[in-house]
Amino acid sequence: MVLCKKWIYAKTFTGAPEAGNFTLETEELPDQLKHGEVLCEAVFLSVDPYMRLFPVPVGSVMMGEQVARISKSENTDYPVGTYVKTMDGWKTHTLYSDASKLTKVQDLGDLPKSLALGALGLPGLTAYFGFLEGCCPKSTDTVFVNSAAGAVGMIVGQIAKIKGCKVVGSAGSDEKCKWLKESLGFDEVFNYKTKPLEAALNDHAPNGLDCFFDNVGGEDTTIVIKHMNKYGRTAICGAISQYNKSKGDKGELPYSPILMNLLRVEGIQIMNYVQKWPEGLKQMSQWINEGKIKYKETVTEGFENMVSAFIGLFSGQHVGKAIVKP
Amino acid sequence: MVLCKKWIYAKTFTGAPEAGNFTLETEELPDQLKHGEVLCEAVFLSVDPYMRLFPVPVGSVMMGEQVARISKSENTDYPVGTYVKTMDGWKTHTLYSDASKLTKVQDLGDLPKSLALGALGLPGLTAYFGFLEGCCPKSTDTVFVNSAAGAVGMIVGQIAKIKGCKVVGSAGSDEKCKWLKESLGFDEVFNYKTKPLEAALNDHAPNGLDCFFDNVGGEDTTIVIKHMNKYGRTAICGAISQYNKSKGDKGELPYSPILMNLLRVEGIQIMNYVQKWPEGLKQMSQWINEGKIKYKETVTEGFENMVSAFIGLFSGQHVGKAIVKP
Repeated sequence: MVLCKKWIYAKTFTGAPEAGNFTLETEELPDQLKHGEVLCEAVFLSVDPYMRLFPVPVGSVMMGEQVARISKSENTDYPVGTYVKTMDGWKTHTLYSDASKLTKVQDLGDLPKSLALGALGLPGLTAYFGFLEGCCPKSTDTVFVNSAAGAVGMIVGQIAKIKGCKVVGSAGSDEKCKWLKESLGFDEVFNYKTKPLEAALNDHAPNGLDCFFDNVGGEDTTIVIKHMNKYGRTAICGAISQYNKSKGDKGELPYSPILMNLLRVEGIQIMNYVQKWPEGLKQMSQWINEGKIKYKETVTEGFENMVSAFIGLFSGQHVGKAIVKP
Repeated sequence: MVLCKKWIYAKTFTGAPEAGNFTLETEELPDQLKHGEVLCEAVFLSVDPYMRLFPVPVGSVMMGEQVARISKSENTDYPVGTYVKTMDGWKTHTLYSDASKLTKVQDLGDLPKSLALGALGLPGLTAYFGFLEGCCPKSTDTVFVNSAAGAVGMIVGQIAKIKGCKVVGSAGSDEKCKWLKESLGFDEVFNYKTKPLEAALNDHAPNGLDCFFDNVGGEDTTIVIKHMNKYGRTAICGAISQYNKSKGDKGELPYSPILMNLLRVEGIQIMNYVQKWPEGLKQMSQWINEGKIKYKETVTEGFENMVSAFIGLFSGQHVGKAIVKP
């Protein structure tokens, strides 16, 4: 028998996720596969803020992407050793009777397969399409991205640099800020925990902002929108500051600046661009291979630490993409 | 001598415009023109809410469009009787030494020349481009427009009907509502003074809204955005509820619906489409001549009543376009 471990969403979130929301269960999978079947074994698991926002039904396995390796196979199209990317969620093993539903991980050359969950996966595509289509950057633009050391923010800032923009980023520690500036080439960075946003924008973007890629939400969004220049574009991608609150939407409606400065504010979501994903992945791969886009992962070891890795998303514990290695 | 009367913006607005903000002055213009000069005499003057929002410097003639007739001319290109459209503001006569700056009123056939200030002027173009480009309507869409009996709103609703949309409008009297429904063909209307917005939207747009053309602003904007369907488009055109307040931007930031429903909220302004005005005017003229777009004007007689006509904009005194006939 193969022992599959899985994390169950056991109790509805109220406020910040905590250990008590989850239970670890096991399931025995057969040792002998039938014709056509494959057994996938998780190699890298993803934890992302959206899992707090769109929880699965209570009693289900927590959802999420993983990169898995086929460890047993009775299907010649999917031999042992094949890497696949699945939405199997927080579990170590999955038995597929119909392997044709599996998506092989694209050829990543020398790059780690975990990138299929980060810079070359949904977070990277979110940054690519969300920023380029939501913010429509021009080379003369000043761009602000918050949660800039996160899985999406770090990519947005670097794409903005590639496009010739001036890039201002915020993050929650001096160490993250240093990395953004020195390694990723952000023009201006500040630690939002020690510098008030209003003052920071006045200091770091004295000529106003043209593009705003928002991962944080709440009152900060209002403040930033008031710093937008005429025709400024705001892409609302996430609201991590709000997910753990029972009532979000703090901050006043920045009505006058939207009207007077003819601003655009738009919610963006990667599923809107499914048709164009291959194009995005190709460009992102090229930039990574050329060294124009760098990436960072925080890898948590051990499937039993999956919950703490997830909880850590909301306290800024990780730098770059948060990955769990079971 | 020709006696020109003019309204001066004498005292800074605080709150609602009142008689004390203005003084009526006179100026003598020469009876004899020099070579090339023309004298324009106002035939129709426009009062619009934007004049409260962007006041001229104190001591200046109030700004605004007018349709004028050339009453004296020493310029063969601009003979007496020519109608021109100018930004001469709130004054009865203007002497031009360089007539080449004047724009002749387009050929309106049997239509009244006052339309050049309304349905075939800036309000009509604002409705045309603001709605079509800001709201991107599809024939299956449900559209909400507030201040629907105003100079812009009445056109927006009718264009939406031409495009096959279901149109919901709000206005400030039962009489206006009746006119919108019975004469202009709005599908649903409600009197915002007697029916709370939330309940009205639930009743009149139970399947949600796809397009929102906003002339009103304030807390209402937040409420409406929360009723938008996925991918809904909001064009923020005006905020008449807020212009008289020292601090506007009431209402909470509708952050979650923007993110979860992938909404777009955009400030729109007619000056963004100057290149395309001729195309818009051509289409609007055609629709009016075909009877597909109807218009209404409230004409105030007497130049001395210009201020009260302007003040009346903010109390819903007019139906359709507010015009002053000196």
